[in-house]
Amino acid sequence: MVTTDNTLGVAVIGAGYWGPNLARNFRSSDDWELRAVCDLDLDRARRVAGDGVTVTSSLEEVLARPDIDAVAIATPARTHQAIALPALEAGKHVVVEKPLADSLANATQMVTIARDRGLVLMADHTYCYTPAVLKIRELIADGSLGDILFVDSVRINLGLIQPDVDVFWDLAPHDLSILDFILPGGLRPSGVAAHGADPLGAGRPCVGYLTLPFGDGALAHVHVNWLSPTKIRQMVIGGTRRTLVWDDLNPQQPLSVYDRGVDLAGQSSTAADRRDSTISYRLGDTWAPALPHREALGQMATEFAACIREGRSSRTDGESGLRVLSVLEAAARSLRTDGALTGMEPAPVPVPPIATRKVTAA
Amino acid sequence: MVTTDNTLGVAVIGAGYWGPNLARNFRSSDDWELRAVCDLDLDRARRVAGDGVTVTSSLEEVLARPDIDAVAIATPARTHQAIALPALEAGKHVVVEKPLADSLANATQMVTIARDRGLVLMADHTYCYTPAVLKIRELIADGSLGDILFVDSVRINLGLIQPDVDVFWDLAPHDLSILDFILPGGLRPSGVAAHGADPLGAGRPCVGYLTLPFGDGALAHVHVNWLSPTKIRQMVIGGTRRTLVWDDLNPQQPLSVYDRGVDLAGQSSTAADRRDSTISYRLGDTWAPALPHREALGQMATEFAACIREGRSSRTDGESGLRVLSVLEAAARSLRTDGALTGMEPAPVPVPPIATRKVTAA
Amino acid sequence: MVTTDNTLGVAVIGAGYWGPNLARNFRSSDDWELRAVCDLDLDRARRVAGDGVTVTSSLEEVLARPDIDAVAIATPARTHQAIALPALEAGKHVVVEKPLADSLANATQMVTIARDRGLVLMADHTYCYTPAVLKIRELIADGSLGDILFVDSVRINLGLIQPDVDVFWDLAPHDLSILDFILPGGLRPSGVAAHGADPLGAGRPCVGYLTLPFGDGALAHVHVNWLSPTKIRQMVIGGTRRTLVWDDLNPQQPLSVYDRGVDLAGQSSTAADRRDSTISYRLGDTWAPALPHREALGQMATEFAACIREGRSSRTDGESGLRVLSVLEAAARSLRTDGALTGMEPAPVPVPPIATRKVTAA
Amino acid sequence: MVTTDNTLGVAVIGAGYWGPNLARNFRSSDDWELRAVCDLDLDRARRVAGDGVTVTSSLEEVLARPDIDAVAIATPARTHQAIALPALEAGKHVVVEKPLADSLANATQMVTIARDRGLVLMADHTYCYTPAVLKIRELIADGSLGDILFVDSVRINLGLIQPDVDVFWDLAPHDLSILDFILPGGLRPSGVAAHGADPLGAGRPCVGYLTLPFGDGALAHVHVNWLSPTKIRQMVIGGTRRTLVWDDLNPQQPLSVYDRGVDLAGQSSTAADRRDSTISYRLGDTWAPALPHREALGQMATEFAACIREGRSSRTDGESGLRVLSVLEAAARSLRTDGALTGMEPAPVPVPPIATRKVTAA
Repeated sequence: MVTTDNTLGVAVIGAGYWGPNLARNFRSSDDWELRAVCDLDLDRARRVAGDGVTVTSSLEEVLARPDIDAVAIATPARTHQAIALPALEAGKHVVVEKPLADSLANATQMVTIARDRGLVLMADHTYCYTPAVLKIRELIADGSLGDILFVDSVRINLGLIQPDVDVFWDLAPHDLSILDFILPGGLRPSGVAAHGADPLGAGRPCVGYLTLPFGDGALAHVHVNWLSPTKIRQMVIGGTRRTLVWDDLNPQQPLSVYDRGVDLAGQSSTAADRRDSTISYRLGDTWAPALPHREALGQMATEFAACIREGRSSRTDGESGLRVLSVLEAAARSLRTDGALTGMEPAPVPVPPIATRKVTAA
Repeated sequence: MVTTDNTLGVAVIGAGYWGPNLARNFRSSDDWELRAVCDLDLDRARRVAGDGVTVTSSLEEVLARPDIDAVAIATPARTHQAIALPALEAGKHVVVEKPLADSLANATQMVTIARDRGLVLMADHTYCYTPAVLKIRELIADGSLGDILFVDSVRINLGLIQPDVDVFWDLAPHDLSILDFILPGGLRPSGVAAHGADPLGAGRPCVGYLTLPFGDGALAHVHVNWLSPTKIRQMVIGGTRRTLVWDDLNPQQPLSVYDRGVDLAGQSSTAADRRDSTISYRLGDTWAPALPHREALGQMATEFAACIREGRSSRTDGESGLRVLSVLEAAARSLRTDGALTGMEPAPVPVPPIATRKVTAA
Repeated sequence: MVTTDNTLGVAVIGAGYWGPNLARNFRSSDDWELRAVCDLDLDRARRVAGDGVTVTSSLEEVLARPDIDAVAIATPARTHQAIALPALEAGKHVVVEKPLADSLANATQMVTIARDRGLVLMADHTYCYTPAVLKIRELIADGSLGDILFVDSVRINLGLIQPDVDVFWDLAPHDLSILDFILPGGLRPSGVAAHGADPLGAGRPCVGYLTLPFGDGALAHVHVNWLSPTKIRQMVIGGTRRTLVWDDLNPQQPLSVYDRGVDLAGQSSTAADRRDSTISYRLGDTWAPALPHREALGQMATEFAACIREGRSSRTDGESGLRVLSVLEAAARSLRTDGALTGMEPAPVPVPPIATRKVTAA
Repeated sequence: MVTTDNTLGVAVIGAGYWGPNLARNFRSSDDWELRAVCDLDLDRARRVAGDGVTVTSSLEEVLARPDIDAVAIATPARTHQAIALPALEAGKHVVVEKPLADSLANATQMVTIARDRGLVLMADHTYCYTPAVLKIRELIADGSLGDILFVDSVRINLGLIQPDVDVFWDLAPHDLSILDFILPGGLRPSGVAAHGADPLGAGRPCVGYLTLPFGDGALAHVHVNWLSPTKIRQMVIGGTRRTLVWDDLNPQQPLSVYDRGVDLAGQSSTAADRRDSTISYRLGDTWAPALPHREALGQMATEFAACIREGRSSRTDGESGLRVLSVLEAAARSLRTDGALTGMEPAPVPVPPIATRKVTAA
């Protein structure tokens, strides 16, 4: 399916909220040619399409075209699998808006068929292509932070209460896909505890907390909230060497790397010795790396094309989407048992070889 | 034991970290005369005492003096009960640095004997006497916020790892005593879930999260952390009418009251109707009340004197200390069961009549 | 020239930096139909134009069309007069990107001919149509701030060093047009002192300060700077009743109204009395009004149409543009005399009747 | 007058606002023994003095004592000279609260007699001994910032309107003494322009701006203001290599060093070439150095002792005080001429050899 010339043909399925962004980025990409926009509402498809782009309400028509190498799915999550499966069966590469599907089972089908056919299946975890997250991944990968001790992520806002998903499924995919992207081992907690509240009686949790212990003593925690009058998007990543704070709403200094922390060193023979002698505190400088100004979705489109051409997995591949869904489903189980720590289901498909997980960011 | 003239005599027990602050505030209070400072280390007691104040290492000597109406205990928590019991038995009123004791059982003994003897036993929950917390209590009590939907409290810093207590016992008493003070019903969650991490191997949790569901669907959550390079002390209190954000580190605008939020109104017959018709969003003004500049500990000393003179319970009485300890002990039980939601032990002593809980702030 | 149906025809002249924004807003306005885009570079004109819009490099062609009621000029300032004059002579209403022209003399010609022909000439002082500035104008007009005592405006950034204008002409038109818009008497200082620095040897001031005394003892001051690594856009407006701070880079709380200040009251017979008895300080609450989310340029387009239909002056009319240019020219004279306070040239055209200056914002 | 043992004796003259701070720091210093506190109000002198310290209202008594090596003057500025002269004549070293005196003439007398007698005369420019300012001086001295291009200092607050001085004399000595301390050549502007406003009719400027051109094209600017509802204390120091922002009210990141800026490089033969080819922009990282926690006044006391023992000038010596007063007097002259740029009076005493100006901070 790798085309012989440089340009790949793509169709965008769904012209609602996210589709126009996808269309605009594919259109301005050197790697891609936008060839079709597909939506049941032809008017809004037309507004998105631009000159020379086919507008259609027929998925079959799109999938039948040989000049379309890939489809980008930007429809509601509950329809992802029903669109992705025929697309993959028609030999198209697929990128899907987050979350990958509405259930782990549906997503697993998508991953399996993509693997069987040798096609690229990619999750559009857009945040992972922002300059800030690419830099965080780099700083963890090169050891600047040391071993990760804890992650605390807050994503709160006065948000629209969604009709069909709770605050975990609406907002936490962002935090979880970022964790999957930056942590050296990916998002593989030993369990999940979820606490939610629906104090307004909206029918689903509007305030939520996720606790994710990792096997090595590290802990990740996520706070998502639709009811907060102030907007906070902040992630603290504590490491043995340094600690990073990402404030996504501070355009002037989004990343701060603190050479501050607690050191526990040495091997003491007694607890009392240990207590007295081995705790020390570093109070060093702070460093805020400059970040390039680049649109994340453009980077995502570039990566999608590169994966197709090089026959490799994406940094945010289908397995990554499965790991995110595994946590969301475990969180749902935890919610049903008063927040008890819930084990992860066995990973339904083998994980990719580690070689495909190396940093390939520009 | 109420003195006939206006001034009450007090002794400060413990001249370490907090004792000097207590001594200074009692000395500058019109209600009090500081008459003794007691510490095994006579040198540091002397530095705290000032002219004309007895310095001693003998608790017995202090308790034997008829001109000492009350003692203020500022020793480590594990010694609170052993000092408070003889003081109460000697007929002294007692104020105790937080937490009230090192266990619910020990604290219960203190509360019981104080009640039996008709003495004031007060927890020095200092934060409750700050202008910010007094204002928050007032805004909740007068209905400005409406019913409380959620509270999210964050208290993180690069903190000293304590040798004998974990981050919950070190920091969360602040958050819990504030919740007890401001919530109309006091701190009476239906259960506690606690998650902690000790990623450095310090021997006790250094990162901690508390989840406190309330019976009415409301949820309180507390994040305490010794390993954060940035200092955050922020509490978001969401109500049906307004939401308040308290940023304790913003001296220019510590309290912001947002007339923003989500309204669910009306009675719809079907879920679909409900979804469509009854959610609305308010995006109103923000208001930041001016606060007086007053030292909290001075207010606490005034309240202590007033309680003794009026024979009434304090706003932060022994029962309040018990409620805080109940949550801390439930949190410890939850930690031992992987964060499972743990019920509260039955309250060990009857709660005070509601009349004593009304706002009496100046 | 007022059309009989509801829609007015407009041509955008200049498709560079600002033209596309004008085109987009005219296109989405109910009041307007975008009928032509004119630029010597036909390619970039084409990208801006959209379906059914004439693309041309001929100003004459545009001005000859009877279905074009108005032109919007978004070319470099040095060309404004040469385009506006024939447009006005052809009977078109004109809106011009700031500054109105490259000199007071050129702008005066434009204002004179527009008046003679009874056409609307409007300066596109875009900031004046933002929700924040409209609110500030309202708060001053309704007396919420009292009499204005001082204004301090800071607009600094790491900015592009312009090839043909200094930092005053590049940035200060924003501050000056806002002052003209919000001050009850408009921008009518008694003089101007300007201090500039070109420490890099760029050939023109890159750091600048304007001091504008007003006849009543009030003072406005503007700091513009291309060399600052941090971006600040803040205006403090001190009044006898309240003081307002506008932080244009704080999306969550752009406007703060402080009920804080100094009061000098009473009539004392001696200076000593006055000093002792009549100064008092208010330390009241802070209030942050909610602002609607509306694009300024859309509001400007609406106002332009309304002025044409109602045959009235705009809130940011040609005279307003002249007042801004008068200050810029006085500043240039002051710079040439080491920052000496420079009087204003006599206003070259009579000021409009006060009736046209009332607040008409929604 | 250098004592043979290690400890120097000091008397504090004036027990009002600043005297207690001086007394406390001398008392806790290893270099000093506080031997007397002198104030006409013996009660407040007594509260400041502490055990074993003489309390007196007689300056003569203090100056007659051989065990008093130095006096620290913390009285109103109008009395500095009348106290300092007899103290110097009695052979005492002298440190004086800012400003050094109430006029350049008076201060010059003080400097002259101190030099003639070989005594240390030091200005208590306290800010210069803060960790932040010491670090700024170091970063300028070691070339980290490059050549200084501009300094913009803002010090605004809702301040007490002083009965006898205007906002320039009250607040600007801070900014000016800091500039004198950090600039390689000290505070030697080629002139001063001052603009002030008294919009309330308080009898003296309450809002003030100082513009200080330096001979090399650099410009310093100071904004002082008693009427601002928000407190800002910020200094931006732009250099050819880096730019530093000091936010004195941000305890978590007071200093930020930006590797951002504009570069004008190369030698172009024509203006057009220059314009096009030689402007480039750096958008590098930000760095926030960690600062030690040390009280400035303690550092000042240490420096005062070291100067006496080593027979050298202080970093904030009498000449520094003269330079600050020269600018304040030039500002007053400028105010009387509508803000015209006013030349500096010839420096009344020779400047110290450059060797004494090197950084000696720890």
